[in-house]
Amino acid sequence: MLTEETINLINQSCEKQHSQEFESLAEKLTQEGIDVKTLLGQLEKFQIAVPSWALGAGGTRFGRFTFGGAPRTLLEKIEDVGLLHALTKNSNAISLHIPWDIPNDIQEIKEAAIAQQLRFDAVNSNTFQDQVNQKHSYKYGSLSHVDKAVREQAIAHNKEVVQIGESLGSKSITIWLADGSNFPGQNNFQKALYRTQDSLQVITKSMPKDWRLFIEYKPYEPNFYSTVIQDWGTSFLLANACGPKAFTLVDLGHHLPNTNIEQIVATLLMQGKLGGFHFNDSKYGDDDLTVGSIQPYKLFLIFNELVYGMATNKNNPPLAWMIDASHNTKDPLEDLLQSIDAILESFAKALLIDQKALHQAQQYNDVVMCQELLQNAFKTDVRPLIREMRLRKGGALDALQVYRETKQRQIRIQQRGANALSSGL
Amino acid sequence: MLTEETINLINQSCEKQHSQEFESLAEKLTQEGIDVKTLLGQLEKFQIAVPSWALGAGGTRFGRFTFGGAPRTLLEKIEDVGLLHALTKNSNAISLHIPWDIPNDIQEIKEAAIAQQLRFDAVNSNTFQDQVNQKHSYKYGSLSHVDKAVREQAIAHNKEVVQIGESLGSKSITIWLADGSNFPGQNNFQKALYRTQDSLQVITKSMPKDWRLFIEYKPYEPNFYSTVIQDWGTSFLLANACGPKAFTLVDLGHHLPNTNIEQIVATLLMQGKLGGFHFNDSKYGDDDLTVGSIQPYKLFLIFNELVYGMATNKNNPPLAWMIDASHNTKDPLEDLLQSIDAILESFAKALLIDQKALHQAQQYNDVVMCQELLQNAFKTDVRPLIREMRLRKGGALDALQVYRETKQRQIRIQQRGANALSSGL
Amino acid sequence: MLTEETINLINQSCEKQHSQEFESLAEKLTQEGIDVKTLLGQLEKFQIAVPSWALGAGGTRFGRFTFGGAPRTLLEKIEDVGLLHALTKNSNAISLHIPWDIPNDIQEIKEAAIAQQLRFDAVNSNTFQDQVNQKHSYKYGSLSHVDKAVREQAIAHNKEVVQIGESLGSKSITIWLADGSNFPGQNNFQKALYRTQDSLQVITKSMPKDWRLFIEYKPYEPNFYSTVIQDWGTSFLLANACGPKAFTLVDLGHHLPNTNIEQIVATLLMQGKLGGFHFNDSKYGDDDLTVGSIQPYKLFLIFNELVYGMATNKNNPPLAWMIDASHNTKDPLEDLLQSIDAILESFAKALLIDQKALHQAQQYNDVVMCQELLQNAFKTDVRPLIREMRLRKGGALDALQVYRETKQRQIRIQQRGANALSSGL
Amino acid sequence: MLTEETINLINQSCEKQHSQEFESLAEKLTQEGIDVKTLLGQLEKFQIAVPSWALGAGGTRFGRFTFGGAPRTLLEKIEDVGLLHALTKNSNAISLHIPWDIPNDIQEIKEAAIAQQLRFDAVNSNTFQDQVNQKHSYKYGSLSHVDKAVREQAIAHNKEVVQIGESLGSKSITIWLADGSNFPGQNNFQKALYRTQDSLQVITKSMPKDWRLFIEYKPYEPNFYSTVIQDWGTSFLLANACGPKAFTLVDLGHHLPNTNIEQIVATLLMQGKLGGFHFNDSKYGDDDLTVGSIQPYKLFLIFNELVYGMATNKNNPPLAWMIDASHNTKDPLEDLLQSIDAILESFAKALLIDQKALHQAQQYNDVVMCQELLQNAFKTDVRPLIREMRLRKGGALDALQVYRETKQRQIRIQQRGANALSSGL
Repeated sequence: MLTEETINLINQSCEKQHSQEFESLAEKLTQEGIDVKTLLGQLEKFQIAVPSWALGAGGTRFGRFTFGGAPRTLLEKIEDVGLLHALTKNSNAISLHIPWDIPNDIQEIKEAAIAQQLRFDAVNSNTFQDQVNQKHSYKYGSLSHVDKAVREQAIAHNKEVVQIGESLGSKSITIWLADGSNFPGQNNFQKALYRTQDSLQVITKSMPKDWRLFIEYKPYEPNFYSTVIQDWGTSFLLANACGPKAFTLVDLGHHLPNTNIEQIVATLLMQGKLGGFHFNDSKYGDDDLTVGSIQPYKLFLIFNELVYGMATNKNNPPLAWMIDASHNTKDPLEDLLQSIDAILESFAKALLIDQKALHQAQQYNDVVMCQELLQNAFKTDVRPLIREMRLRKGGALDALQVYRETKQRQIRIQQRGANALSSGL
Repeated sequence: MLTEETINLINQSCEKQHSQEFESLAEKLTQEGIDVKTLLGQLEKFQIAVPSWALGAGGTRFGRFTFGGAPRTLLEKIEDVGLLHALTKNSNAISLHIPWDIPNDIQEIKEAAIAQQLRFDAVNSNTFQDQVNQKHSYKYGSLSHVDKAVREQAIAHNKEVVQIGESLGSKSITIWLADGSNFPGQNNFQKALYRTQDSLQVITKSMPKDWRLFIEYKPYEPNFYSTVIQDWGTSFLLANACGPKAFTLVDLGHHLPNTNIEQIVATLLMQGKLGGFHFNDSKYGDDDLTVGSIQPYKLFLIFNELVYGMATNKNNPPLAWMIDASHNTKDPLEDLLQSIDAILESFAKALLIDQKALHQAQQYNDVVMCQELLQNAFKTDVRPLIREMRLRKGGALDALQVYRETKQRQIRIQQRGANALSSGL
Repeated sequence: MLTEETINLINQSCEKQHSQEFESLAEKLTQEGIDVKTLLGQLEKFQIAVPSWALGAGGTRFGRFTFGGAPRTLLEKIEDVGLLHALTKNSNAISLHIPWDIPNDIQEIKEAAIAQQLRFDAVNSNTFQDQVNQKHSYKYGSLSHVDKAVREQAIAHNKEVVQIGESLGSKSITIWLADGSNFPGQNNFQKALYRTQDSLQVITKSMPKDWRLFIEYKPYEPNFYSTVIQDWGTSFLLANACGPKAFTLVDLGHHLPNTNIEQIVATLLMQGKLGGFHFNDSKYGDDDLTVGSIQPYKLFLIFNELVYGMATNKNNPPLAWMIDASHNTKDPLEDLLQSIDAILESFAKALLIDQKALHQAQQYNDVVMCQELLQNAFKTDVRPLIREMRLRKGGALDALQVYRETKQRQIRIQQRGANALSSGL
Repeated sequence: MLTEETINLINQSCEKQHSQEFESLAEKLTQEGIDVKTLLGQLEKFQIAVPSWALGAGGTRFGRFTFGGAPRTLLEKIEDVGLLHALTKNSNAISLHIPWDIPNDIQEIKEAAIAQQLRFDAVNSNTFQDQVNQKHSYKYGSLSHVDKAVREQAIAHNKEVVQIGESLGSKSITIWLADGSNFPGQNNFQKALYRTQDSLQVITKSMPKDWRLFIEYKPYEPNFYSTVIQDWGTSFLLANACGPKAFTLVDLGHHLPNTNIEQIVATLLMQGKLGGFHFNDSKYGDDDLTVGSIQPYKLFLIFNELVYGMATNKNNPPLAWMIDASHNTKDPLEDLLQSIDAILESFAKALLIDQKALHQAQQYNDVVMCQELLQNAFKTDVRPLIREMRLRKGGALDALQVYRETKQRQIRIQQRGANALSSGL
């Protein structure tokens, strides 16, 4: 296990340069009227959950090119998220996927998480794959299936996921459905939506009072003609039908080309129905690429809405943040480090926006100034801020460097094997 | 003016061949259990409104290539829609656009419409252009504008449009907004949406009890970064906020690439909030091309949902149908004849779908059979049905042929001039 | 095995109705100046290859929902394509995928094909998956790989595929590469393209004189940021660099949203560089759905270009036709029957276009008439023509009906098992 | 006219802070092995042409919301570009559009340009609009028209544009065609492309030896079904057919959704056929928004290819750079200042990429490091570099601030009127 001492030691090699850069930036920001201490506090509090299935290599329809040292068990997954948190101080939670991560010994798992300073974020159910010994197949859908027996099986699975989550201290469940159709005519859209609504209502009703249900939407999967919950409008409609425990969850990759996602975020916040976020990036479809690797400005614009909404929309509960990416040609842990950095940097930049000046420019339709205000924040190199926050918390100045220098991947390959397979996507 | 006698005379030349084709089709359909008489009745009742602005050449940002003989006045527009109805018997309504079509003499206009057997469909307001002598500019929005004075001007205009519509017998108003932003930061999304909602509520409240408000959505205009009502979800949200008089209107061209429009139609029908339709076709964006000219199967799939929903969703009021196309290289009236035919054919094909067999195939997840049932209807050549209905009603067997043979365009050029300009897009 | 007698017997039940419909259509077409006999001859000659990998259930990243009775061996695959050909008389070829289909006994395989009246179409290489015992991994590319050893391995594999193809009588090889990158910066675009070109040139040079190389293009795979051959322009550039044996192959699903594929087809034909076609349909991306199930009019427009080009562009060699679809919720063989029908119907409709009248309307910019001419052909119900051709050749009037009535799937499940797995996608 | 003294005076107010920021950055870059002096020299040499039509308000199909003080004459347009250059020192060229900018007195125009230190970049022809007194209409095309007389008129116009350009010292012509079709069947794709090629060859042949022809491509215009030059492949094919004087020009807005433009740039550079660039940004289609306002990272990735290609592809001639944006809600001159900055910043960031380290990371497939290297450059705040270069050349430290403080727009409104109309889009 990577100790704080080792991190500190490696930090020392770049601490001097960092200090210069941080001082210089802090001075500039202070001059602009920004309270750097408050800013650092906001960055420190921002915590992103890592999903258990993103710790190994992702797969495509053609197979999977494995990395060595993938976590074979839930305990090893917790260990890996713990490493990310030790390095970044911004990922203090793990999000489980059932049945991939059913814990055998709840107590052992809880203690392992505590040891790594982790908590359990939203749990995820899975009705898009058939499990061995499963009575009914999800080939033609789950919560929307024409056959009541299949729907009941899927509902029961979701209830079980909630129970497991409860035992670990989770407070929410995320439901993503691969229900839909491959061809026109296959589904009766109205009936399928009605059945989905009915199933979700049953699940919500059965949930503990303090739990929240997050409903994902997605326009398509490969080979699909339609999905049951194709867009935020449908998810929102279902969340309203399920009552105050239910919310819409936005996955950045689940949109048609050119969608203005930041506006969707704003609308959901305004309605008090935004539950959480799945971060990733994409160029063509649901590519699940490293956060910020393709469209970092879009990510910043989304954070602009989030920062504004979190300050303004008190009717909306605190948001659940999670990375949902897939790793094919990068070491998964390095990939996650890059994603965590991208999220933190976007958040920091959004916090730099001069909201008062922006409001004024908007009032006067000074479109040029509106852009200047946003881009001034975006163009600022905020990396010294993130580093400073981590330094103060005992994290790594350069997480990737520490990861590589301390040979974390090689250690894992030795311990877990070169062909270790992680469950998950 | 084109008389029924002239139409009959030209019909005679192709009546024999038509009869053979109709008999043959009718026999086949009867064998399949379809009541041809009922079918003809449904086709006869299907009436589509023609918008006053589609009777002349459309424009692009580079200018407009005019056709001769465009209608110069509202009376001439009514005359042209009357011609389309005389030929097809399926377009008994005209949809006015204010201020382009403000009638001077209400009584004269009403009588002209009655003479052509036309009624007045939804009226359309215009806050996307500045009119001469207008106090405030809509450059930065109308119903969503940051300045209350601008919003009030736009609200007042809409109220005036309702009044004009009422005097002519219209029962609904369609609002399409070009409000939005060109750059990130220009608009505060939440505030802009809130202001829009507020404006729409004021308008709805002021409307007569038996009136309906149709709220269009559209993801983008050229040069835009965002629109205030970007998708059906936002329109639906606004329609709910405005109460039982307000509905969503679907324009086929107002969607992001690959959107499953037929599913949106189904969802809105299920919620009882589908108000009406603007028909057109497109390959890339909001192209306003002839209905059925690019994706006729998609149109058929939409009619499949409409036919099912009109029979099933009694909570949803009768729908308003309108063509909303633009004409750059086709004679506008010929273009409209092609659009009317495409709509009627799609409707007829959707009526042929064996709903009972489809329901059963869906219940058994017999996906192959679901497709067979839909495509069997689509592949059927239903043109003889449309022709038969028109023949019986005194319309033209081949509307385009009659239009050309009777030299309608040339007559108009003589009467109205080769450079006559029609108001509108 | 399904005998011609059985087919004839089942045909009899619907022969009378068919005759009426065919007579009626033939009479109409004859009146329009079309030589029905010639038309039937053209339909009869149109033969589509079925790929060996499309005979079983397709997979997604989440797994595969199997159908029973999938062909376990190459012999069984030949048997299945034989069945499709016996029913439709339009699929007399099989397209092999190496290494999934490496034949052990060439003579046995050839005889099996002859027994089913099949020939071997283009062979397909596979460098997008790692095979067991493969020396170098294709994780980071094959023909474009930075490491020469990997490129040479991939080149050697392609040469081997050509050899196997030659032994079976194939005359062409199709290369589809999953080479590309997942993130900006990963690839040097210029060097990667240069290496790809170099590899393709080596392969082409080594091919027998009468062989052709088909180069596929594709803008993206899930999780990708770039592909080495992203569009027809790149494939065309490579085909030119490889000389007269090399051609571009168009897969309908390999395009960005809204691409005008029919125009690409026309351009390639004009340049004499169109090699062949992979047919399928899609709504969102590379969905590999049943041909004609989503956008049948687009398919017709493509056939319009093909019919014109095959008659006009004598510089372009005869085209290779293949279905390339994936089956998740339909019985694969039923799905292929639907695809074959869709292709034949589109071809038949394109043959009905009055080319002379179309040319004239184009000369006079009579845009309305151009559309009328195309849509008149498209709206014609040509199914009786296909059926008549099949009836005369001993095929099935209704292939799907015969397939179901003779319980082909059940027979296969009995013979091959309910959990038989087919190699392939 | 804005004097250097005034600029200097305003600069002084922020010079001290600038110096600190520049020193700090220069030190950091020097430590990383970058020669800051060379870098400043490269930034200084980078000059972007401003098109004459972008100096006034752009139009949409609904009309135009004017800004006051638009340049009414070519002389005033030169004055405005001169102002941009005085402020930024990076826009020393103007690109004319004929017939909008036909100069009456060549000598006067040339002297005016020299006085502003401007040269004349590529001239642009216009065959997408009909001019008063034009013999033939371009309604149905120009260089691709079915009628030879129309094609000859369009060719003659292009020749005249070249002559005008020659008299002013231009060395290239850019051709953008709005030729295409609105409906399937309207155009014979092959013949239309052949006619276009023929016309372009005639124009190229007639051009002076040292001139270059730039051929734009574009997939669609609103209301279109096809364009004659839909993509880079078609433009490249035409450029090859026209010989060594002809090149492809890339307009960032002329692509289908999700196109990997940077890869197209790389391919064209590799082939020695990239002629120039039209810069703008867009969210949905050809939106002509401020450069860098929507996807700044994409712009950076394109500059990454340009920087690499300009250093590597000596076969490719120097590139022509131009902004091609449209202004609806921003002051056009402010908008252009923002665009110039965005281009310079992207160029500067691309110059910071450690090419040697990148090459090495690519060789080892260290995908994580490839991204780190690109993003390290992108995340660097390079604004102090641009400012320093301008300060040394006598330009403005903050161009927008100087523009506003010296009341350039108000001066123009006074001189030219509040309703002055600029010719152009």
